Amino acid sequence: MEDLLYLRVAGHYRRAIRSGVLAPGERLPSVRALMRLHQVSLSTALQACRSLEDEGLLEARPRSGYFVLKPRRVALQAVSEPEPGAAAMAPDPAPYSGIHDRVSDFVAKCERYPVVTNLALAFGAPEAYPQEALKNAALRALRRHPEVLVSPVPPQGDPGFRAVLARRAMAAGMSPTADEILVTHGCTEAINLALRAVAQPGDVIAVESPTYFGLLQVIESLGLRTLEIPTSPSRGMSVEALELAFQTHARIKAVVVVPNFQNPLGCVMPDAEKARLVALCEGHQVALVEDDIYGALSDDDLPLKSCKAWDRSGNVIHCGSLHKTLAPGMRVGWMIGGRWQARIRMLKHAQSRPNDALAQIAIAEFMGSSAYDRHLVRLRRQLKAQRERTAEAIAAHFPAGTRLNMPTGGMLLWVEMPGRRSSSEVFNTALQEGIRVAPGMMFSNAGRFDHCLRISCGAPFSERIETALTRLAQIVAAGLD
Amino acid sequence: MEDLLYLRVAGHYRRAIRSGVLAPGERLPSVRALMRLHQVSLSTALQACRSLEDEGLLEARPRSGYFVLKPRRVALQAVSEPEPGAAAMAPDPAPYSGIHDRVSDFVAKCERYPVVTNLALAFGAPEAYPQEALKNAALRALRRHPEVLVSPVPPQGDPGFRAVLARRAMAAGMSPTADEILVTHGCTEAINLALRAVAQPGDVIAVESPTYFGLLQVIESLGLRTLEIPTSPSRGMSVEALELAFQTHARIKAVVVVPNFQNPLGCVMPDAEKARLVALCEGHQVALVEDDIYGALSDDDLPLKSCKAWDRSGNVIHCGSLHKTLAPGMRVGWMIGGRWQARIRMLKHAQSRPNDALAQIAIAEFMGSSAYDRHLVRLRRQLKAQRERTAEAIAAHFPAGTRLNMPTGGMLLWVEMPGRRSSSEVFNTALQEGIRVAPGMMFSNAGRFDHCLRISCGAPFSERIETALTRLAQIVAAGLD
Repeated sequence: MEDLLYLRVAGHYRRAIRSGVLAPGERLPSVRALMRLHQVSLSTALQACRSLEDEGLLEARPRSGYFVLKPRRVALQAVSEPEPGAAAMAPDPAPYSGIHDRVSDFVAKCERYPVVTNLALAFGAPEAYPQEALKNAALRALRRHPEVLVSPVPPQGDPGFRAVLARRAMAAGMSPTADEILVTHGCTEAINLALRAVAQPGDVIAVESPTYFGLLQVIESLGLRTLEIPTSPSRGMSVEALELAFQTHARIKAVVVVPNFQNPLGCVMPDAEKARLVALCEGHQVALVEDDIYGALSDDDLPLKSCKAWDRSGNVIHCGSLHKTLAPGMRVGWMIGGRWQARIRMLKHAQSRPNDALAQIAIAEFMGSSAYDRHLVRLRRQLKAQRERTAEAIAAHFPAGTRLNMPTGGMLLWVEMPGRRSSSEVFNTALQEGIRVAPGMMFSNAGRFDHCLRISCGAPFSERIETALTRLAQIVAAGLD
Repeated sequence: MEDLLYLRVAGHYRRAIRSGVLAPGERLPSVRALMRLHQVSLSTALQACRSLEDEGLLEARPRSGYFVLKPRRVALQAVSEPEPGAAAMAPDPAPYSGIHDRVSDFVAKCERYPVVTNLALAFGAPEAYPQEALKNAALRALRRHPEVLVSPVPPQGDPGFRAVLARRAMAAGMSPTADEILVTHGCTEAINLALRAVAQPGDVIAVESPTYFGLLQVIESLGLRTLEIPTSPSRGMSVEALELAFQTHARIKAVVVVPNFQNPLGCVMPDAEKARLVALCEGHQVALVEDDIYGALSDDDLPLKSCKAWDRSGNVIHCGSLHKTLAPGMRVGWMIGGRWQARIRMLKHAQSRPNDALAQIAIAEFMGSSAYDRHLVRLRRQLKAQRERTAEAIAAHFPAGTRLNMPTGGMLLWVEMPGRRSSSEVFNTALQEGIRVAPGMMFSNAGRFDHCLRISCGAPFSERIETALTRLAQIVAAGLD
């Protein structure tokens, strides 16, 4: 309980600052006053102030107290919307566009230079996750169930874990039974199984453009072809463009979307768009596969809905994992297979058998308690602060004409460089100086986003990161004529 | 050390009994005499006697001591060799032979009836594995490395674990570096990756006949086709028949064998055959995939060689796991990808990302110590005793004309029923009485082994098992005209 009190106190002053009730430069009540006013302990009052300081709302002045900061505005324009005609110009799907070569090249280069500042990882720093609590849950699981190490594993995943997942899915508007959930080796395996269940080699998969290169790799490795659908940095995949694609391409067997805090754009599809997308796919009997791994990371603590919430016919395959939200070191994912459930179960069995039980039992304990909610609240605050600091540094240092999205959750920023500066060049130069970013050319098979960079805000903002971003800005600027 | 002493004492008397130096009915030296003769403690002397009793070599008579038992001979004929012409008669590969339907049907039926005696599992009972030691290793791993739960996973598997695997591989005649080993989700994922690396949908995979139905499922689920090669219950896959197949089938892209204690036949390929097989595949540039998960389970404690031991060109893909030998509840496998290593790494990354580190760290500690060797010695003794008891019960109760293989390791028996009795019928009737066996018709796509049963000896022999085998024998006999 104590743990949540500081959030309540911080929330009180956050609202006051945001609404202008407390103006920039004003002094917050003293810590003693806070203790008295909110009936909290010294440590709770301090924690509330520090969390607002971390968010960039307050600054501490030695021996004077906490003062409201001037809101730091990001002055950059939002990244470009796809061109109006883009939908009609969707290129023919290419059978093999060399994404593996591009990624292998990226990995090989990364291995060649020691990394000082890694801005390429799409998950939080280890300290952002509840290492101690997870360790203790795992220790308890081992002591209580030592037999799981030597006994056959339950066929679809640990029943207790699936029950917790079913309960948690309700927050995203879904209502699966535990039996409809299949535990997988991370979301990556879930996406593999989904695509294997609905498509055959040679078939076409419609994806967002830009999209996560890991998805392009899955599609390529399964012998499928990619069709990139124009995607708005504010509203997600264009449902109109998809409809047009359905009319012109016969072999589209699935659409894959990241509906919430898309990778790399960070956009959230509005609910109405999600509903339209679900209806469109259902009408065309094309499977809709959603990868909803960031949905719980919304700044305002309001859970975002999954596409699956609108699914009435089992046409949506929902995939999730805890890689971003809870435990990057435990590869635990799951899926709700809809009308392909039986085929997906069979494929999972043939591909890798059911998952080990231990990790599931440990996570079920943690996710079944309010500790998970408290962790998510902390993680969201932290990611928001880190995103804002990073965005400010980009705004301050990058050359004029740079554009930037400003997601309302997650950990990714998408930067559009001016003058169509090449991301490969920027990547190569930065890498040699120990700075790692994800170059835009990895996010499309059609070579569309070479003038963009994805910058991750998973690690606590620091002087080192600020220096790296300053240097990155110089590298970008140096290549402009 | 104490732990191994009893094995030395037991070995001394086992040899004496086997060679006839100690005849049936003779009395073993008293426990006190054993203590004096071998300079061991009371508990070691007792442990030695009990382990010989478990093997069926001694019986304890109250207040008299231990007496040599009459050797119980299995009087059954060995199972049939493939017909001489079988190689030439190898059928055309079928694109889809319905193995999934057959397995689904098997699973659905199994779920319908409560199981009393399960003779269908191809791994040991939980008590055959070192639950406590594994639990403690996992507890230590968690305490020492709590960061693994929240940190990125190492790309090919935990380096310490791969180093231990590389060292242990030497016993099977291989000499991989740790870097050549890729950790996978069990051997099943390894086989999947191997076949995906070397073949495209529509290609043909040559397998043993009979073979493990799980392999047939993998092949079917990947859109590949199966070609069954006649396989001798004494010498494994017929290299002559395979050579003929290479001459007549153009699209064979891989050969999959279980060279040691094949599932279901239990046969071991003689070293000379392994060498010929490796050379033949290399000569035809067809990948040889070996699934060597039982090789460490040889009765005589002499490690068996893997086919990979003869590989000079990287044409052999070696796959292994700990599912049978150490921890059925921890799905940890590995592979040595040979000349396909880079492609396999890429496919593993795209299919499920690298494995979690925790289980690997825990297992590395156990496998790196002599505790693993001691465990294997115990497990082999136990499996041998269980196999012998089961074989005796089959010999005593099954109808005349029944044939049986007698493997020198592992945990599987293969029974050929007289009069071509249908395994599906026997399976169905037995199931309704709570007895589960694996029907022979699941071990071939070509419908060849419906008159066989696979009987697992993974659990300690008991009165319940004896009763189940007696009843099974009655069911078999009842269907004979």
